[in-house]
Amino acid sequence: MTRRLGIDVGGTKCLGVVLDADGRVTRRVRVPAPPDVTGLLDAVAEVVEGLGGGDTLGVGLPGLVDAGGVLRAAPNLAGVAEFPARALLEQRLGMTVAVDNDATCATMAEWSLGAGRGVDDLVLVTLGTGIGGGLVAGGRIRRGAHGMAGEIGHMVVEREGRPCRCGHRGCWERYASGSALGDHARSLTGTHVPGEEVIAAARRLDPWALEVVEVFADWLALGLANLANVVDPARFVIGGGLADTGDVVLAGVREAYARTLYSAEHRPLAEILMASLGPEAGAVGAALLGADDA
Amino acid sequence: MTRRLGIDVGGTKCLGVVLDADGRVTRRVRVPAPPDVTGLLDAVAEVVEGLGGGDTLGVGLPGLVDAGGVLRAAPNLAGVAEFPARALLEQRLGMTVAVDNDATCATMAEWSLGAGRGVDDLVLVTLGTGIGGGLVAGGRIRRGAHGMAGEIGHMVVEREGRPCRCGHRGCWERYASGSALGDHARSLTGTHVPGEEVIAAARRLDPWALEVVEVFADWLALGLANLANVVDPARFVIGGGLADTGDVVLAGVREAYARTLYSAEHRPLAEILMASLGPEAGAVGAALLGADDA
Repeated sequence: MTRRLGIDVGGTKCLGVVLDADGRVTRRVRVPAPPDVTGLLDAVAEVVEGLGGGDTLGVGLPGLVDAGGVLRAAPNLAGVAEFPARALLEQRLGMTVAVDNDATCATMAEWSLGAGRGVDDLVLVTLGTGIGGGLVAGGRIRRGAHGMAGEIGHMVVEREGRPCRCGHRGCWERYASGSALGDHARSLTGTHVPGEEVIAAARRLDPWALEVVEVFADWLALGLANLANVVDPARFVIGGGLADTGDVVLAGVREAYARTLYSAEHRPLAEILMASLGPEAGAVGAALLGADDA
Repeated sequence: MTRRLGIDVGGTKCLGVVLDADGRVTRRVRVPAPPDVTGLLDAVAEVVEGLGGGDTLGVGLPGLVDAGGVLRAAPNLAGVAEFPARALLEQRLGMTVAVDNDATCATMAEWSLGAGRGVDDLVLVTLGTGIGGGLVAGGRIRRGAHGMAGEIGHMVVEREGRPCRCGHRGCWERYASGSALGDHARSLTGTHVPGEEVIAAARRLDPWALEVVEVFADWLALGLANLANVVDPARFVIGGGLADTGDVVLAGVREAYARTLYSAEHRPLAEILMASLGPEAGAVGAALLGADDA
């Protein structure tokens, strides 16, 4: 039996899984996220050992990964600049390693095994501190010419808008990420409220929270409509930390999407679903990528 | 010798071409654009006859065309609603007809024979009254799940921005189309100046016109950066009525693009070129599509 390993290097933790032939996770190992890029190799090696080794390995990294497996930039990993992740990991581990952007890995997982199954044209949207994404078009993951497709959180939707950590203004992720939910709460109520509390209050039908969710849903839908105008997917899958809030936000997002999409009355509307694989999606997808490359 | 016919139904004219095996135009016929959808069939039939008939036929239409060849909506053709263009044209002409969006046809032409040759990941951006577009990814034209990819002019880049004829606000085409050039001139000078005069004045280095072009180039680049963040093409090709203004706008667009793209210092920048096939691109691409389907 082939043991497919997948590791997702995140901002706070590094999660590894073993995947069986049916795509089930049979083992998990979690270690703290590496503080910097030299720690990355150690953390991955530790997880591989903890998983008991494997036949194939894929690693998802939180940043721009080019087609040669070089991590070009990673906002949350100190010291990264043109870091040849694939080459160094292969040298360290003595095996073939596939590396890719973490959101691309999550896309692979949701598309193969989760809420994205059954369609050839898909956009995964992961809502967390920022917004990540991945594209499937014509039945294949699309990474673009340089491996950097899917940086959808940095679409500008308000030219002179909120400053973004990327140095620009008005990026979609300043309005529709998990952390933006808290920002909308502050704008409307004057107090900072964490996103989870906004969701909990909306479930209790507190009017202020329903208003925050409506503003948030409008912004989320605006970006989805932009993406539909560009790539016209059959389905959007919403993942990341807000994936379990479907009951609270989905109806509003769908309604706002149908209102915002260009010429919506003359075209089939994409489905909008929540992701189904939870926080393991990145690691599962990394395992699938590794097996693809082996 | 196969005679490949292509017809581009535009807002003001209907242009047909015959394409030889080398992709050269050997004959042209032009008739006025049909005023409404019933005139469309007559106009296409007239052009086919004027071209002396052919073995294959493709037709580019100015609107949303679905995968079944139904024209779902067309802002500049009166009476269009769910118009089964392919079926009615095939019935009228007694031959197989491929129909597609006009910007998709132009993309096919520039990619096969023009400024887009040689790359597998391309975005064509046509600047006219609005902004149209077409995508090539992984070496194929991508139409999306419902045939409606590439409606890039309706990406919202300024949520409460200028009203668009589509009914929404802040669409990219209100800031970066050919007609938007004249709008920027009015904003800056208080007088309406047609786009061609702005370009002519910028060629004379008139300061006001250089300023208008700079504002325009910034907006054009903002949308290109959004598209690169989503699909990461190797090259952009700028077509439409402004395709012969490369000397005036390209340097500014490239500079603003490099300034606007997310994490631009860590990634290869897409080339930005002007289209090379001129106003016949749509008809040439329609002929190529028709031959593909035959």
